[in-house]
Amino acid sequence: MADSRFFTRQGPFTLGMLAELSQSSLSAGADGDQSIIDLAPLDRAEAGDIAFLDNKKYIAALENSSAGACILDPKFADHAPSGVALLLSDQPYLAFARVARAFYPQPEIEPGISSGAHVHRQAEIAAGCRVDPGASIGAGCTIGEGCHIAANAVLEEGVSLGVDCRIGTGASLSHCLIGDRVVIYPGARIGQDGFGFASGPGGHLRIPQVGRVIIGDDVEVGANTTIDRGSGNDTVIGDGCMIDNLVQIAHNVQLGKGCVIVGQVGISGSTKLGDYVVAGGQSGFAGHLDVGDGARLAARSGVIHDLAGGQDYGGAPAIAARQWKRQLIAFARLAQRKDEK
Amino acid sequence: MADSRFFTRQGPFTLGMLAELSQSSLSAGADGDQSIIDLAPLDRAEAGDIAFLDNKKYIAALENSSAGACILDPKFADHAPSGVALLLSDQPYLAFARVARAFYPQPEIEPGISSGAHVHRQAEIAAGCRVDPGASIGAGCTIGEGCHIAANAVLEEGVSLGVDCRIGTGASLSHCLIGDRVVIYPGARIGQDGFGFASGPGGHLRIPQVGRVIIGDDVEVGANTTIDRGSGNDTVIGDGCMIDNLVQIAHNVQLGKGCVIVGQVGISGSTKLGDYVVAGGQSGFAGHLDVGDGARLAARSGVIHDLAGGQDYGGAPAIAARQWKRQLIAFARLAQRKDEK
Amino acid sequence: MADSRFFTRQGPFTLGMLAELSQSSLSAGADGDQSIIDLAPLDRAEAGDIAFLDNKKYIAALENSSAGACILDPKFADHAPSGVALLLSDQPYLAFARVARAFYPQPEIEPGISSGAHVHRQAEIAAGCRVDPGASIGAGCTIGEGCHIAANAVLEEGVSLGVDCRIGTGASLSHCLIGDRVVIYPGARIGQDGFGFASGPGGHLRIPQVGRVIIGDDVEVGANTTIDRGSGNDTVIGDGCMIDNLVQIAHNVQLGKGCVIVGQVGISGSTKLGDYVVAGGQSGFAGHLDVGDGARLAARSGVIHDLAGGQDYGGAPAIAARQWKRQLIAFARLAQRKDEK
Repeated sequence: MADSRFFTRQGPFTLGMLAELSQSSLSAGADGDQSIIDLAPLDRAEAGDIAFLDNKKYIAALENSSAGACILDPKFADHAPSGVALLLSDQPYLAFARVARAFYPQPEIEPGISSGAHVHRQAEIAAGCRVDPGASIGAGCTIGEGCHIAANAVLEEGVSLGVDCRIGTGASLSHCLIGDRVVIYPGARIGQDGFGFASGPGGHLRIPQVGRVIIGDDVEVGANTTIDRGSGNDTVIGDGCMIDNLVQIAHNVQLGKGCVIVGQVGISGSTKLGDYVVAGGQSGFAGHLDVGDGARLAARSGVIHDLAGGQDYGGAPAIAARQWKRQLIAFARLAQRKDEK
Repeated sequence: MADSRFFTRQGPFTLGMLAELSQSSLSAGADGDQSIIDLAPLDRAEAGDIAFLDNKKYIAALENSSAGACILDPKFADHAPSGVALLLSDQPYLAFARVARAFYPQPEIEPGISSGAHVHRQAEIAAGCRVDPGASIGAGCTIGEGCHIAANAVLEEGVSLGVDCRIGTGASLSHCLIGDRVVIYPGARIGQDGFGFASGPGGHLRIPQVGRVIIGDDVEVGANTTIDRGSGNDTVIGDGCMIDNLVQIAHNVQLGKGCVIVGQVGISGSTKLGDYVVAGGQSGFAGHLDVGDGARLAARSGVIHDLAGGQDYGGAPAIAARQWKRQLIAFARLAQRKDEK
Repeated sequence: MADSRFFTRQGPFTLGMLAELSQSSLSAGADGDQSIIDLAPLDRAEAGDIAFLDNKKYIAALENSSAGACILDPKFADHAPSGVALLLSDQPYLAFARVARAFYPQPEIEPGISSGAHVHRQAEIAAGCRVDPGASIGAGCTIGEGCHIAANAVLEEGVSLGVDCRIGTGASLSHCLIGDRVVIYPGARIGQDGFGFASGPGGHLRIPQVGRVIIGDDVEVGANTTIDRGSGNDTVIGDGCMIDNLVQIAHNVQLGKGCVIVGQVGISGSTKLGDYVVAGGQSGFAGHLDVGDGARLAARSGVIHDLAGGQDYGGAPAIAARQWKRQLIAFARLAQRKDEK
């Protein structure tokens, strides 16, 4: 399926191997020795391909699929054509992720420091790293083994990376300490001054921002996302956070572990999110708030109060999701009533 | 008008030439031989300048204008001072565009590959291209005739451009195939991994994103806009789409022809927009939706359902524009009522 | 407090010196000779540190603080432990800014043009400037004394900077004239074409954008923010404006002096903001509007009408803040009523 100009496929794998590595089970009658050569979406999959179903919207695509095999929840198994072998899982998307990573593992980097890179003699770069042309690495930087610094990325003085990090093209890092296996996408800006100034009769007076950005392990920071350094305390991104593109994270913000921050979210200064908080796309958070572990915000929520963990929220100002849905219904009815008069 | 440090003007042109190239007609009494030397806004235009009117807000500026000529809709002709020659058009903005392009055509590029650029020996660059210092072009890239790759732009392995493309300073392209006459503005990020992961007990597991970004002909992609590559299917931008700054386009999104996507819009994964859809600034689209040809979304719309084509919409959740306007009125009244008590 | 890898501290200073430079007064019983060696947040400050209080939320932190001194409004003085010396100010945040700048002044730049920079021979760079590797400076650029052009920043042809400007890593400047002491953060895009095109039967026809971006003195432009050049008139950013990250400013927009534009705001074409306008995060402005001096917009406001100066606004469409708050209450009640049935 994948364009060989860009991707290198592993395999083939037998269905039995894929069931094992994806922790799913073969449906009755499926042949564990069946050879699978590639991934494909349901509507394009052929006999050698494995597809997956994780969204009811695509049941019709399953019913008409020519895939050799499909990963799905057992409850949808009846919709599969008889010729499609099934890998059954109650976490089909996770199972698919494991299969996909077998076919298309992260490419190994070819180590080497380009002669077109600008590496300060006081920077320490461990073995197995790759630094591409135009990348710039300042004095006092320390870079762990197996990192890839892509073309035109810039690490300013003193930045530290753990092992196996990937810094995308044209990204900027300053005043930050970064863990292991972190992926920074192209154009992300990490560690610049926060938006801190005091306004007086003579205008706005910038306040020195003397904190850092601390990023844990296994974090991803999306393309053109911005994370400002702390003003005094640090800005902290916990282990395993997934941050999408064009997100703004202000000074002193703290994210717990495993948060999911979808595209174009903005989080104002000193707000703290607990572990595994989910912020839907284009949501906004006022400053100095606490949001509890596992809170889930619908897209475009506007958070202006502290929120307890473990619940779903929506709307602006954000309220409990059930109440928000009632609001939307009442609002829709309001206009209808007027219409009926 | 234009600052000669930045712009080179052509001309002068006679009114007759401008009428012809702009497909507009001279008003009665206008002299086709009148010489026009430049463009200018109504309030700054002098005798040698041509201005235009396309927005009622500026009728007072027309009434007080010293312009030599003005392009406008015949219905506004009575507002012009007697000394202003008129070019009449029922598409005055389009007529002005043609006139403006005559005075200020896109500058021709001076071909040449800078010694400060990093071009892989396995990249193919056609005749007439310009590659500026710090630009980086990877193995297997193919670049059509007449392209300009500006300073510090990066094309990763295998990227393909058609003819006469312009890639802005510091832009990043990977995993993408791009048509002819495409303009990518500075800092745009095209082709990075989509935001795809499966969440399980061990955290979030990234799913390899093995699709591409396919961009048609005559497309523009704004500054710092991000377009993720597909997860399996491709992300597709149809011919003639105009995409503004800071827009987020997620994996597997498909835009038809000629869509207009205004600044800071976000489109979630797998959503499809038909031809000539207009998305107002800061709008958001949930994932897996279909929006029909010619649908027009007001600024800040929040789209969470499929929308039929050929209609105007607004609000969040986005509904038919007429109904939305009633909602706004009812909402405003609601607060007033309370106030009156 | 600050990490010495990234920051260099001045001092120590006596309390008396800090009172004088911050224009605050020592509380009764405080010792003007007490030595202060650093800044710290209330909850981490020790005997040698000075902290500040500017937000009621942190009164408990004050009550439990071990700081040597604290800057605060006299009205909160009773909450300070007896061991904490107080600097009293009715503008405590401004006073803190002055103290912070004494301890952590902007580092002086080490002048020099890197051999890895690309400087056109027709560019003029004054004394005392620093140009880092990969930076690119085009023909006809003029750069005043004491400017710092960071790694991989690009100044296209004819760009002009005043004195003591800082251009961040990977930023792009074209078609712009910039004043003194301006700070452009990493990845900002200034001066590219506006989103100007005329739509006709053959698609969208781009209109040459022949204005500039004019930026006054003491302006800050945030990371990955985009400011398009004017279409004919200029885009203008007044003296002392503070613009946060990921803001979109369209062609022909004019900002007066000292405006504060918070993250992810979008301002559409030809809209004019007066002096000292504050636009809260994620706000949006339609085009061709006038917003008066000192207007203050709450976060996520949607401005679609002209607004008078000197007042607070909120909501979408934005209305007077008082009325907006009544709307929110009525809206919340509406859903409650339905719930009670």
